[in-house]
Amino acid sequence: MIRTVFWENDSVRMIDQKALPHAEKVLTFKDYRKVAGAIRDLTVRGAPAIGVAAALGIALGALKSPAKNKTQLKADFNRICKEFSRTRPTARNLFWAIERMKKHFSGLLEDREIDPAALRWALVEEAVRIGEEDIEANRRMGQFGKKFVPDNAGVLTHCNAGALATAGYGTALGVLRAAWESGKRFHVFADETRPVLQGARLTCWELMREKIPATLITDNMAGFLMNQGRVKAVFVGADRIAANGDAANKIGTYSLAVLAKENKVPFYIAAPFSTIDLSLRSGKDIPIEMRPDEEVTGLNKARTAPAGVGVFNPAFDVTPNRYITAIITDRGVAKKPFSRSLKKLSDK
Amino acid sequence: MIRTVFWENDSVRMIDQKALPHAEKVLTFKDYRKVAGAIRDLTVRGAPAIGVAAALGIALGALKSPAKNKTQLKADFNRICKEFSRTRPTARNLFWAIERMKKHFSGLLEDREIDPAALRWALVEEAVRIGEEDIEANRRMGQFGKKFVPDNAGVLTHCNAGALATAGYGTALGVLRAAWESGKRFHVFADETRPVLQGARLTCWELMREKIPATLITDNMAGFLMNQGRVKAVFVGADRIAANGDAANKIGTYSLAVLAKENKVPFYIAAPFSTIDLSLRSGKDIPIEMRPDEEVTGLNKARTAPAGVGVFNPAFDVTPNRYITAIITDRGVAKKPFSRSLKKLSDK
Repeated sequence: MIRTVFWENDSVRMIDQKALPHAEKVLTFKDYRKVAGAIRDLTVRGAPAIGVAAALGIALGALKSPAKNKTQLKADFNRICKEFSRTRPTARNLFWAIERMKKHFSGLLEDREIDPAALRWALVEEAVRIGEEDIEANRRMGQFGKKFVPDNAGVLTHCNAGALATAGYGTALGVLRAAWESGKRFHVFADETRPVLQGARLTCWELMREKIPATLITDNMAGFLMNQGRVKAVFVGADRIAANGDAANKIGTYSLAVLAKENKVPFYIAAPFSTIDLSLRSGKDIPIEMRPDEEVTGLNKARTAPAGVGVFNPAFDVTPNRYITAIITDRGVAKKPFSRSLKKLSDK
Repeated sequence: MIRTVFWENDSVRMIDQKALPHAEKVLTFKDYRKVAGAIRDLTVRGAPAIGVAAALGIALGALKSPAKNKTQLKADFNRICKEFSRTRPTARNLFWAIERMKKHFSGLLEDREIDPAALRWALVEEAVRIGEEDIEANRRMGQFGKKFVPDNAGVLTHCNAGALATAGYGTALGVLRAAWESGKRFHVFADETRPVLQGARLTCWELMREKIPATLITDNMAGFLMNQGRVKAVFVGADRIAANGDAANKIGTYSLAVLAKENKVPFYIAAPFSTIDLSLRSGKDIPIEMRPDEEVTGLNKARTAPAGVGVFNPAFDVTPNRYITAIITDRGVAKKPFSRSLKKLSDK
């Protein structure tokens, strides 16, 4: 099993996703600032994985903090949380994980007898639990979602919503994994997902490890495949889902959803409840991260466009709820109207 | 002015489009086989430019043919034409140019007095004329199409339908050029156009030379921009247009057309009549070229996907006529129903 980001020997460890698929390296971080840097530079990416990395990073920061008492530790903890909240703006799971760590810390402080060392280790335990729960959530999504995967047909996915986007197993790819484990057979078309190529580099790598048949395409080929009847369902993850079901996900997702609707192909989103932000009424309120020009003007270090050209590089787009067939969560499947179904699942 | 492919000093000369935008090299070919190779390996690309290159290449082959009499020259000419017809399958202009050279050759042979040298030079003249007429056709398209370019707004283009895709001036970019020359001001979003990046490498280069404001995006960003209301019209070229208006163009065009329709953005195709194939009833009959896996699994020489992954790499897709607002040709603008309007223009 792929373990994307985890705790080991008083350190945060993670697969270096920038090195994949050419090299499989597991990095070891003993300084929380380096964990924040790894989130920022996409060494670890994928909304659930970012949440787990932040929780583990916060625990690492608290563990290594020189604070001599609980007051100092609390100040340090809050500063560290703030640093992680500034790494990336869109993924709901990041803020969800930070809030959960804060809440846990507050709860621990209610025990006036607790000493700083116990506090630190309790934070580590909570962060590890967040990672374990993420894997369990993925497996539940797989069970809820596998019925939507067509047998003996082509399906399409975008970016990487696999084990590498989570603590392990995956959201959209988790659903495909569960369907495969249950004996269904299908073929996955993987969008390469410019500019950072998470589809080409990560999704193909995961599918080939599992021996699930995969075909790589450029992003602009997906519509043509749908129009040819070669894609029977689309499965993607999400970075933040508003209360009405509007979903932010990797740039290009909106286009796929429109193309799926036009070609009568069902369009599924798989995401744990930690991705859902009921405080936002609609997708219009989701902050969209803009990333550096260099991602678009080249690939790795090779420059492709003329120097000085203008660039627009949003990392995500928002798919309006009307294009989404169902949202597969770890608490069950939400259907339209999502405002009602998501609310109902959140009350579970 | 950019001259993409032309005749000079008994040679075929062309800009090396594989070297752009990093280097501006003009190559010189004295062997027609090298011209055919340049079409095959995308040194020259773009349907009208391929047609002109083939015509010039055929003339070069005839000029350099060792044939001692007209019978030998005719055999050589036919063999050379056949070689060019096998370079690429989709662009109508290639076959149109070959047919026109053949027809001209037949016409010349009707003069029983003509000697082989005169025949050879008459073929060169015809090929040069094809190039000159292509530029004139582009300028006429520009005049017919410029009224569709919105003032003070964003427009989108895909691949390169510019001077580099023609003998000079351009089809879709020719329309934008004509609008710019007439004083309109607008902003061009250029899709990078994976896998070969003609948008990033060629369209941005052309627009920057003309000082027309350009913003480079990855292909999967176009839909999001349309959804944000930042694109007021889409202009693309075509490689082959069937009698009913269905149009083959660079892969990704179909998706843009669907996204434009969904967002109520007009979608224009600009192409000379040499691109229109009235012998095909619909787009279903247009042969679609499949290209090598390596274009998708990497960029330049850098490999991005895991070795051994499956790949689907169609160079073109077909946009059904219902998504097309108008087809701008060198004989006027065709509107729906295209079967009727294209037929009417062809009778002009």
